[in-house]
Amino acid sequence: MDLTRLPRSFGATLPDWVLEELTHSPTVLPTHADRMELALRLAARNPLEGSGGPFAALVVDTATGELVSAGVNLVLSSGLSAAHAEITALSLAQTRIGDWDLGATGAPDRELVVNWRPCAQCYGAVLWSGVKRLVIAGEGPEVEHLTGFDEGPMREDWAEQLRRRGVEVVIGVRREQAVSMFAEYGRVAVERGLTVYNARGGA
Amino acid sequence: MDLTRLPRSFGATLPDWVLEELTHSPTVLPTHADRMELALRLAARNPLEGSGGPFAALVVDTATGELVSAGVNLVLSSGLSAAHAEITALSLAQTRIGDWDLGATGAPDRELVVNWRPCAQCYGAVLWSGVKRLVIAGEGPEVEHLTGFDEGPMREDWAEQLRRRGVEVVIGVRREQAVSMFAEYGRVAVERGLTVYNARGGA
Repeated sequence: MDLTRLPRSFGATLPDWVLEELTHSPTVLPTHADRMELALRLAARNPLEGSGGPFAALVVDTATGELVSAGVNLVLSSGLSAAHAEITALSLAQTRIGDWDLGATGAPDRELVVNWRPCAQCYGAVLWSGVKRLVIAGEGPEVEHLTGFDEGPMREDWAEQLRRRGVEVVIGVRREQAVSMFAEYGRVAVERGLTVYNARGGA
Repeated sequence: MDLTRLPRSFGATLPDWVLEELTHSPTVLPTHADRMELALRLAARNPLEGSGGPFAALVVDTATGELVSAGVNLVLSSGLSAAHAEITALSLAQTRIGDWDLGATGAPDRELVVNWRPCAQCYGAVLWSGVKRLVIAGEGPEVEHLTGFDEGPMREDWAEQLRRRGVEVVIGVRREQAVSMFAEYGRVAVERGLTVYNARGGA
């Protein structure tokens, strides 16, 4: 086989504006509300900058509040359909600590903070990452209604399944603020014709 | 915030031995059996080389049989828990064509060929990738029993959900060969103490 056309590597890079946002953020985010507010700020700006959808995720040291990594949805800028905010944040955290397992023995507990319930893909990714807790602003049909994004086929007992496997789930941090952000995104997306890139027509 | 410790990029690279295997493979793989045999060859070698678990995936042009990309599980070599074979193959294919959507209007139909049913994460990833067909060697408890790998919480109607969203599902290509390969992996893993890296203790 002629291998010259077969790619060997893939990857994604945070855009400059994310680092700009982070320079204005404190190093330590003590409460869930602090963590979610940063996630919401990144999520709101992301589609306006053209990187991807209105989603951001942070990996945070649960006890100290230290930010381990910050990610946004990079599907458009990276050209990778898997580069959702959760995958980006988890992968950056794993790159930083040099281990695929964020929950390895002896490591501090780490949590993933996301501005809505993860989609079908990222749901599984949470489980394999080693985080001990998932913190989300909310769940429910608002996102799909307001933004056109599709979560994919989720299990009804999705949170219980995570808990059974050792991942605590915290739901409802800054929910109203998250819903307002999605509503604003929906309005702007229609006005500017932004790409809603995974609206493949759900069930 | 001091950003010097925050990582900006993540990614993964196929090891040299995958390219070596591909040089001995034909450029075009006409049948599902041809495609699965290549996937099984890569999957069997992967844990012995230390890159990750016994899983491989190909993106193939459905009509012509042309290989678009080949991926293996790179969790151990990349240090990324999301770098399963499916994510690797889909991401490499998207990198090659320069589009996050492998099913964009006007593009040829492409399919993902994997040596077993995707885990909970990769199930969602299939949906967002734009492939029109998923071809697997099999599904069922054999993999978890023989290898210790955990698929995560899947929906009972997982295949029907894909079909509803426009992804055809073909199950049972070279099933016996795949099961034999997993059995062999299981034996070698015990003998050599290979890492079964996601066995986080399922439900």
